[in-house]
Amino acid sequence: MQIRISNGKVVEANAGQNIYQALKESGIYLVASCGGKGVCGKCRVKVLGGRVRTESTGKLMKKEVDEHITLACTTFPEEDILIEIPEGSKLVIGDKIAISKTKNLRDFLHSVEAGLQPAIRRIYLELTPPSLDDPASDLERLKHALSEKGVGQMHFSHDFAARLARSLRELHWQFNLDYTEDFYAVAVSSAEQVDRYGIAIDIGTTTVVLYLVNYSDGAIVDLGMTYNSQMRYGDDVITRIVHATEGGGLEDLRSAVVNDMNDILSPMLEKHGIRREDVDSVVISGNTTMAHLFWGFDPSSIREEPYIPTLNTFPIWQAGTAGLDILPQAPVYTVPCVGSYVGGDIVAGVLASQMYLKPEIALFMDIGTNGEIVVGNNEWLMTAACSAGPCFEGSGIRHGMRATEGAIESVKVDPNTFEPTLGVIGNAVPAGICGSGMIDAISELFFKGVIDQRGKFMKDLKTDRIRTGDEGPEYLLHRGGLKEIVLTEVDIENVMRAKAAIYAGVSILLKEVGLDLDVVERIYIAGGFGNYLDIDKAIMIGMLPDMPKEKFSFIGNTSIAGAYLCLLSDRMRKEAEEIAKKMTYAELSVSRGFMDEYMSALFLPHTDMSLFPTVRDLYRKS
Amino acid sequence: MQIRISNGKVVEANAGQNIYQALKESGIYLVASCGGKGVCGKCRVKVLGGRVRTESTGKLMKKEVDEHITLACTTFPEEDILIEIPEGSKLVIGDKIAISKTKNLRDFLHSVEAGLQPAIRRIYLELTPPSLDDPASDLERLKHALSEKGVGQMHFSHDFAARLARSLRELHWQFNLDYTEDFYAVAVSSAEQVDRYGIAIDIGTTTVVLYLVNYSDGAIVDLGMTYNSQMRYGDDVITRIVHATEGGGLEDLRSAVVNDMNDILSPMLEKHGIRREDVDSVVISGNTTMAHLFWGFDPSSIREEPYIPTLNTFPIWQAGTAGLDILPQAPVYTVPCVGSYVGGDIVAGVLASQMYLKPEIALFMDIGTNGEIVVGNNEWLMTAACSAGPCFEGSGIRHGMRATEGAIESVKVDPNTFEPTLGVIGNAVPAGICGSGMIDAISELFFKGVIDQRGKFMKDLKTDRIRTGDEGPEYLLHRGGLKEIVLTEVDIENVMRAKAAIYAGVSILLKEVGLDLDVVERIYIAGGFGNYLDIDKAIMIGMLPDMPKEKFSFIGNTSIAGAYLCLLSDRMRKEAEEIAKKMTYAELSVSRGFMDEYMSALFLPHTDMSLFPTVRDLYRKS
Repeated sequence: MQIRISNGKVVEANAGQNIYQALKESGIYLVASCGGKGVCGKCRVKVLGGRVRTESTGKLMKKEVDEHITLACTTFPEEDILIEIPEGSKLVIGDKIAISKTKNLRDFLHSVEAGLQPAIRRIYLELTPPSLDDPASDLERLKHALSEKGVGQMHFSHDFAARLARSLRELHWQFNLDYTEDFYAVAVSSAEQVDRYGIAIDIGTTTVVLYLVNYSDGAIVDLGMTYNSQMRYGDDVITRIVHATEGGGLEDLRSAVVNDMNDILSPMLEKHGIRREDVDSVVISGNTTMAHLFWGFDPSSIREEPYIPTLNTFPIWQAGTAGLDILPQAPVYTVPCVGSYVGGDIVAGVLASQMYLKPEIALFMDIGTNGEIVVGNNEWLMTAACSAGPCFEGSGIRHGMRATEGAIESVKVDPNTFEPTLGVIGNAVPAGICGSGMIDAISELFFKGVIDQRGKFMKDLKTDRIRTGDEGPEYLLHRGGLKEIVLTEVDIENVMRAKAAIYAGVSILLKEVGLDLDVVERIYIAGGFGNYLDIDKAIMIGMLPDMPKEKFSFIGNTSIAGAYLCLLSDRMRKEAEEIAKKMTYAELSVSRGFMDEYMSALFLPHTDMSLFPTVRDLYRKS
Repeated sequence: MQIRISNGKVVEANAGQNIYQALKESGIYLVASCGGKGVCGKCRVKVLGGRVRTESTGKLMKKEVDEHITLACTTFPEEDILIEIPEGSKLVIGDKIAISKTKNLRDFLHSVEAGLQPAIRRIYLELTPPSLDDPASDLERLKHALSEKGVGQMHFSHDFAARLARSLRELHWQFNLDYTEDFYAVAVSSAEQVDRYGIAIDIGTTTVVLYLVNYSDGAIVDLGMTYNSQMRYGDDVITRIVHATEGGGLEDLRSAVVNDMNDILSPMLEKHGIRREDVDSVVISGNTTMAHLFWGFDPSSIREEPYIPTLNTFPIWQAGTAGLDILPQAPVYTVPCVGSYVGGDIVAGVLASQMYLKPEIALFMDIGTNGEIVVGNNEWLMTAACSAGPCFEGSGIRHGMRATEGAIESVKVDPNTFEPTLGVIGNAVPAGICGSGMIDAISELFFKGVIDQRGKFMKDLKTDRIRTGDEGPEYLLHRGGLKEIVLTEVDIENVMRAKAAIYAGVSILLKEVGLDLDVVERIYIAGGFGNYLDIDKAIMIGMLPDMPKEKFSFIGNTSIAGAYLCLLSDRMRKEAEEIAKKMTYAELSVSRGFMDEYMSALFLPHTDMSLFPTVRDLYRKS
């Protein structure tokens, strides 16, 4: 059967396949935090024509059902159908990568290291061809030439040796030998000069970002981004770990993300006319679970107390082992992790932020699908994971969505009528609310007296915007269109839990090192989220500490930036190891006092208003 | 269709399959130097019943055809048939391995090294289980425990890491870690004490010998031998190299010999109740071509001037890579080779002979499918390959066969009637003539005046034993039975070429070092052949130098003996490397003077009778 989409696309659906699955197989991803299990109620589509069978409409309002809106994952075509996909249901890539910033990274690289030094080395060798008087074996001849060039002990794999005899003869004993920095021979190739390339990859829980880099000058030849297809199996790290322990689940997850990488890379190489075998080193940066899944390692111990990863520091393995479609022997460097919930992405972030080089005490916050914090300077580094959860990316929020077109990103509330004025990304019809929109909305609702310090709606306000929905009290942000958009008390609770976790994390981390907030001279906000964040509002709800605005720096996706640095520099890889080693990991869930701090932070902005003097002053003035 | 064999066995033949192929697929190998191509005429069978189609009977005598004898490789069953396989056509394993000699090897091992030290190490580790206060990753925990035991840098493969988390937890953090001598982690296993085993393998061109050895005391638990199934593709090294360069041929050869090993090992392990994973190291000893084929390396450069192997010294690779059916990560040590035609079998032989430890100058001769010589002592070693060819193993000889039941191994000739008296192995009906039989026959025929110094038959002798056959003059050794057995002038020529090559090799090698035969104090004769060799007769035909009999020692299969030593001893592996490095390889084909020496040796015993005083005296007396 065929599913026609109102934009003109046609997708084939097999018998017994629901709309969600059929679309997914054709590369059209719908929002589905639950992975298409009929639970989250987000994969709404409107059936414009044709007969369907719907198993459950549990998450839909009666009005929606009347308008032929249904959940794609519980609805099965019974003949050819025509559907419309509302904006809020589409999984779209919204974040733009600030490529201009790589210029700064290149300057930084040049300042620390004379030349670019990827994890793969190339040496040109000319061997004396063998003769009856000089009958040394091929490998001995090669070893001899290497030792004459001062390259000592080299390791030779069976694969390498198996190809050696033919290669040496085809290349007439003059060739380039590539080897890894720990002296494993990789390949011999023609002596002609060709550009060579590496790839830096950020494996985010939600997105995968890939840079294709030319070694000769460090230029980013191209870059690409896609959703991490592991999303099919759940939005967050924990859901995926659970999936990994189910039959075949680990391989599902591994191949999903590796296919994403190959899918980004393949058209890129074609476009630039680059051969696969000229892409010969890789750096991977991701959180600990992502790194484990990429390498196909069972991550279940990460989830179970005492939360132990198989490895934090990964040996250099080969691209072929991972399934990357480049030179199979290419070394893959994995940015080292610190612990189960502070991964290589954070180490890469600290590296890219350069906070580890300066004497000033800085705070690094990466608020993505999880939330990680680092505090420290050139002498010490302390880190913690806050388990903020993915609510700022739209998960667990009734009408939450990522910061893409149609997302409400700012909210003003009239102090008298309590009517909202919405700012929507792309000036589109609102389709949902993104992280910064939530922070804005809560800050406004609080400041305008619509909700109290505990995030509960005030009673008896004269407005029909506050009403009681399926999940209890809610504020109607947007009426009509394909659907109404509300912010529920449960949503607000979720955001408050997340912001409390982040704030408590910062507090405890500083307490552990016996420092006050005052001594923090810089706060780095990393992650795609940072680009849209209104500092004032984030302080208002008590997510960020109440500090002068000029101390905050948005530094974007530092995981890919750090991976880029490691791809091109020996020194940077060593620094990454040093950073990982130096970082003290504080497990907040066992930290005495964390629960107290967390409970105290479960208010707007905080139970202790003296910590938020700016907010207190504003509040008094209003 | 079915092929019934007179001994009761029944074999299925597919349509279009000749008898040779059908038998081969059922594991019944016939003698066929040509690999079943209708050329060598050795795979004779007698058709007792049923209709067959025969494509060629070129190598058969009319009488044989009349008796329904046919070549299995050119004959196709057209219905169910009954056949008889003559003794001489069966490929049978004849050589017995002198297991008693291993006691000497063990004593030798104990004299050089305190304990047995295989290439795999085992260390017992108890890790502190992780806790919230001690959340190091599994691999870091392992590394830490290792460094506490003084084991430094260890390499971890992706495979090893992938299994680590589960293994550590299943074993409750107490386990044995196995690693190779160059510090590659192999496997973790239960801490319980179990016996562990290694295998030593001699890959001969003709036979494969395998010892299963218990590390704890060096005892040979079991041993086995089989024909090298590469024989299907040709009797000698050169034919196999040619086959390797044909499409898929390399993989044919590789898998043939690895399957042989697995076929020997598998029932052995079952019989002794040993698990595959408890067999965790391997030593391979073979000539250079055999080593290359075992590892699946294209050997073609070995055959083409200037005769260059891909490697002489093989890195330690894994049993799984080779396809051996034991612990896949088990390290495989390949006894190092010296050059294209002096391989690890000779290095192992020198090691086992201990000639490299003594000041006396010794000569080591391995007369197998090829012929290799080493001369030297504890200070220097010089080696050469003689290209003797496989005639002493029956190849290239009209009625040649290996020294198994039915082989003529000794011949007396009556000086008056020229009638022969034959000694046959197993006192069976003669089926052919083996190496020692040929030497005996030629020596007798020469001494009794039936052939002259050039190996040509005397004319006008009063005997019908000398006649003219298909290939010219021949001597009828045995009449009747299933077939007549003759020794042709061509056969004699072949043996003389082989013995001349060996003798010339010894002469040139000694000349190269400026020494006379007199200074040689010991001659080691290695190889299965040695067991049946009559020294006097070998001197008589000029194959061995004319020296006192007490200087000769038969030392059996020293390739497997050396492999056994290397399996159990660190020191022995180092010595093998030293021996290989120390050996100077003389390429006889380019040695000035070799051709002269060879031509001079193409007489019985030699053109220069002063070199063979014993023979001269005997000859004069007679």
